[in-house]
Amino acid sequence: MMAVPSSTYPRRLLPLFLGLFQGALLLFFALFVIYDEPSAQAEDTNLVANQVYSTFPFFQDIQVMLVVGLGLLLTFLPRYGFSALTHNFLLLNFSMQWALVLQGLLHHFHHGQIHLDLHKLLISEFAAVTVLISVGAILGRASPCQLLVMATCEIPIYLASEWVIVTCLGVLDVGGTITIHVFSCYFGLGVSKALFKATQQPLHPKETPTTSSDLMSLVGTLILWVFWPSFVAVLCQPGDAQHRAILNTLLAMSASAITTVVASSLLERDGKLSPGHLQNGSLAGGVAIGVVADMAMPPAATLALGSLSAVVCVLGFGFLTPLLRRKLTLHDQCGIHNLHGLPGILGAAASVVAVLWWGQQALCQAAGLAVATGASLLAGLLTGAALGLPCLARPPERLCFDDSLYFKIQDQAESAGLDSSAEEGALALKERV
Amino acid sequence: MMAVPSSTYPRRLLPLFLGLFQGALLLFFALFVIYDEPSAQAEDTNLVANQVYSTFPFFQDIQVMLVVGLGLLLTFLPRYGFSALTHNFLLLNFSMQWALVLQGLLHHFHHGQIHLDLHKLLISEFAAVTVLISVGAILGRASPCQLLVMATCEIPIYLASEWVIVTCLGVLDVGGTITIHVFSCYFGLGVSKALFKATQQPLHPKETPTTSSDLMSLVGTLILWVFWPSFVAVLCQPGDAQHRAILNTLLAMSASAITTVVASSLLERDGKLSPGHLQNGSLAGGVAIGVVADMAMPPAATLALGSLSAVVCVLGFGFLTPLLRRKLTLHDQCGIHNLHGLPGILGAAASVVAVLWWGQQALCQAAGLAVATGASLLAGLLTGAALGLPCLARPPERLCFDDSLYFKIQDQAESAGLDSSAEEGALALKERV
Amino acid sequence: MMAVPSSTYPRRLLPLFLGLFQGALLLFFALFVIYDEPSAQAEDTNLVANQVYSTFPFFQDIQVMLVVGLGLLLTFLPRYGFSALTHNFLLLNFSMQWALVLQGLLHHFHHGQIHLDLHKLLISEFAAVTVLISVGAILGRASPCQLLVMATCEIPIYLASEWVIVTCLGVLDVGGTITIHVFSCYFGLGVSKALFKATQQPLHPKETPTTSSDLMSLVGTLILWVFWPSFVAVLCQPGDAQHRAILNTLLAMSASAITTVVASSLLERDGKLSPGHLQNGSLAGGVAIGVVADMAMPPAATLALGSLSAVVCVLGFGFLTPLLRRKLTLHDQCGIHNLHGLPGILGAAASVVAVLWWGQQALCQAAGLAVATGASLLAGLLTGAALGLPCLARPPERLCFDDSLYFKIQDQAESAGLDSSAEEGALALKERV
Repeated sequence: MMAVPSSTYPRRLLPLFLGLFQGALLLFFALFVIYDEPSAQAEDTNLVANQVYSTFPFFQDIQVMLVVGLGLLLTFLPRYGFSALTHNFLLLNFSMQWALVLQGLLHHFHHGQIHLDLHKLLISEFAAVTVLISVGAILGRASPCQLLVMATCEIPIYLASEWVIVTCLGVLDVGGTITIHVFSCYFGLGVSKALFKATQQPLHPKETPTTSSDLMSLVGTLILWVFWPSFVAVLCQPGDAQHRAILNTLLAMSASAITTVVASSLLERDGKLSPGHLQNGSLAGGVAIGVVADMAMPPAATLALGSLSAVVCVLGFGFLTPLLRRKLTLHDQCGIHNLHGLPGILGAAASVVAVLWWGQQALCQAAGLAVATGASLLAGLLTGAALGLPCLARPPERLCFDDSLYFKIQDQAESAGLDSSAEEGALALKERV
Repeated sequence: MMAVPSSTYPRRLLPLFLGLFQGALLLFFALFVIYDEPSAQAEDTNLVANQVYSTFPFFQDIQVMLVVGLGLLLTFLPRYGFSALTHNFLLLNFSMQWALVLQGLLHHFHHGQIHLDLHKLLISEFAAVTVLISVGAILGRASPCQLLVMATCEIPIYLASEWVIVTCLGVLDVGGTITIHVFSCYFGLGVSKALFKATQQPLHPKETPTTSSDLMSLVGTLILWVFWPSFVAVLCQPGDAQHRAILNTLLAMSASAITTVVASSLLERDGKLSPGHLQNGSLAGGVAIGVVADMAMPPAATLALGSLSAVVCVLGFGFLTPLLRRKLTLHDQCGIHNLHGLPGILGAAASVVAVLWWGQQALCQAAGLAVATGASLLAGLLTGAALGLPCLARPPERLCFDDSLYFKIQDQAESAGLDSSAEEGALALKERV
Repeated sequence: MMAVPSSTYPRRLLPLFLGLFQGALLLFFALFVIYDEPSAQAEDTNLVANQVYSTFPFFQDIQVMLVVGLGLLLTFLPRYGFSALTHNFLLLNFSMQWALVLQGLLHHFHHGQIHLDLHKLLISEFAAVTVLISVGAILGRASPCQLLVMATCEIPIYLASEWVIVTCLGVLDVGGTITIHVFSCYFGLGVSKALFKATQQPLHPKETPTTSSDLMSLVGTLILWVFWPSFVAVLCQPGDAQHRAILNTLLAMSASAITTVVASSLLERDGKLSPGHLQNGSLAGGVAIGVVADMAMPPAATLALGSLSAVVCVLGFGFLTPLLRRKLTLHDQCGIHNLHGLPGILGAAASVVAVLWWGQQALCQAAGLAVATGASLLAGLLTGAALGLPCLARPPERLCFDDSLYFKIQDQAESAGLDSSAEEGALALKERV
């Protein structure tokens, strides 16, 4: 494993960028952010306590999903697991803080003050999710600085897009199917297209998952699968709507899990299942159901939506991703188009059908989808072009997908105790020879 | 690693079976299943919200146990981890949906409609647990199709047995010790006996756990250990009974954890602990306590029960499993008899003692145990005979315990980067030679 | 890998010690411990149910932190993962039960009875945390018997120290920064100093983390990071105080996560991040914030505290730990001084500032810190001297950091399938040669 010559690689940009950001955040908080006044009345205290009990468990579930579940899902690259986990964690924190600032300025700025509460943190966390999804398109081939610049651009664009879609167009999307999944997918693809331009990315030798990296990644999928209902239902109206959102998500994801096995097995000539299909297809139902989760639709429609989204996800991996790579030289490392794009569009289409009798609203849903797709793709292309700046230090091809570029980490071969073992084998042989 | 000749192996049965099932489920849902009507009154809404808050966190805990905890526990087979995790996940979803249908038809069919709610999903999940436990007896030597057929048979038999035990006999068993653990253990052993007949299964070279597979499996145990109180307490009466069930489960499992170390250390001549004992014994208290968890018994009895169940579990691994294998040619891959059978019987016996002053009820508890043991063993033997059908494609011995039979997965040696490393070692040697 | 001659190693002490303890606990429970009487009134039942719903989710979160999160964090030693996970689990159970007995006798003994409830279990769990932290100083070089004796000594000393600090001095410390983190850090360092005396511990070949052990450890960090707010907030007054504690912890830990990257990157000449910094620094904010979490301080101060604690943690790893090792021959395996000591002192200092306007209270906070530091160091030194008793079987240096000393576990090289592979490589070569 070659060491990277430190002279050729700008090592100080990352701490400088993050340090300045953290300092600016501190200043911003010192000037504008306060907590709510402690309430003197016992009734108010009960109210706050109830809010804590009704929101906090959902919030924790979502944190587990993003920090542990999504982090592990990204460790399928066998020599890039530490980077994937760390970058995901870093981007979540950065984006959440950045969204907190922007949302505070835009929506919650009253008399020179921003009142912070758990609900505002939750909303910022939702904004951060878009970044975590988008980076999936360029995972392993981008430097941390590039990812941070990408997050810096994506958060305000997301907030603008979400404002247009939800506030102006009045789109119903309780689980973020359109506003989060579709938006972040096409933003990520735009970035990838602009960053890698017309050059087709060759298959990197470190890109192929191993059994153990695939296993870790599947554990991540399962964690996401378990907690997904919390993500969809947290912002629902308590009571019937929330209950329905939980049930719909559970049903859709259960249908996805089984249909993924069917589709993956039929797709491959020898009937073997592909780990990548399982890791993504099982979650497709959760992506699609978000936009209709709290609507009063028949349970059978939920099952159908969950199954269909798993099918399009698996077909996406089988046919569309290779096609996009070949025809459009579009690189999509984690297949976010199959997990977030296609099922998201499917869900949006379902929502159009679900509110068809409502006339106007159906048009709004369709318009929201168009905005989420178009605006994000355009903004992604522009962001991707900015990421090409040389100072952001995109890693050279031969150092991609490798933890040792960013971390003081043991060489992987050593790490498995291999060198010594191979040496032992060799020595044993020597004696025999 | 040899490739399986795809001509000799029926690859299309699995997707066909699952696809038809999913289609039939869709039809069934379309015809009969609806959600509760949204309630117009604010009071009702509050009621629903409270039910969500009181049930949903327990439900999520149980999902984590079954999907992540149990899944990881089964990854102790070093080359079969991906299969264990995926089959467990698939069986959970399949069995849950199948139980939903059957329970809907049997218990909740009113005026041609089945009203779906979170509680009914939870009950179906409990039914699915029996399948996940039973397959432990034949893990690694059965095809997915065999496992699915086993689930198809086990769910209705469980529902019948549970109806007899709880409804007819009035057995008290809030944590499912008799109805779930004892039942599924003897069902699984019956299947194993009938499937492998009188031939003693030889020790397979891929059967021995490695350090890293044992570590993953222990993480699974710990996840199960942490969330077990939710499993026992979720169906308790809220208030004192639920509080007591939580405390009893915590105490029993804590005693199990310590006693397992004592028993395992005393059993082995060199005093070293066996990973298998730790992975199972620590959970034995949770199995045994279920049937008495909400009863008003002294905390000391809880501790004693937890300790005793760990002792019988470890002794079971040390003496009974080898004996059963030798004398009865009974194969029990995961030792489900030691984790679910023996502690379950112990718990049932404890429940007889606990309600002894109640006369009649003590007899009922004993009768319930007899039904759970006898009926499940008989049904398991019949099911196992059916699994022997050639079309279900039991894998040949040399391909057992191997992920590559069902998954497009890297060879394990490659996956650890070994080939290249060994080659490097060899090349380095070559140069020296 | 050499086998340990079983004659030279006292194998029966561990089961004897634990078995006697478990028996004595059983006796104690039989004589003194009861549950609360079931309450007949519906109102009381509602009250109990509400307490269960408000405490139990927090309790489960803390169990996940200690059993899974902390356990995984300690698996950074590549050949000692199974031991780290098991010893952590065993010590938690042992210490919790031991604390339950002592606290029952000291605080809750009324008319010859101790009423057990979830809150008392939670308090005992907090006591157990001190042991889990302290053992980090000597991880890998101490036998299980030594760790158990250490726990036996530490729990009563903690209870005494906590009584002095909280009850006598009236120190405010809702998240245990002073009473738990600072106390256990200096206790652990005292033990380490007395146990290893003036001999500097050489770097052991098995001490260096590998990529995969570092990855598992980071997963542990992330689990701790996610659930930390529950640990800090569980004992807060429900309502505003608890809400504030959750927000403060979230903010502080988010600032820690980002600042750790800044500090670690600046510290290393080549700008690469050190896994050890990330694993610990990200949590430093949670340690520091505990003592002020429920106070009405500005959010900006929380951010500053989180950032600062990450900086001192990383600097501690970079400069102080090597210095202490060289100058004071003080051995600190997991760097508990950097994660618990320095941020804890920082948090205590912040609490002095936060209550400065309150006069008297500021002095109390400072006095509490002094007691926690001084008493624990002294007690740790005495305990460490006792651990040196030959009968406690400190493992010889060459057998340290190795699972195979205590567990019937596959050799690590074998476990990765290496021997066979290296052999295959060698054989392949042979053919070529």
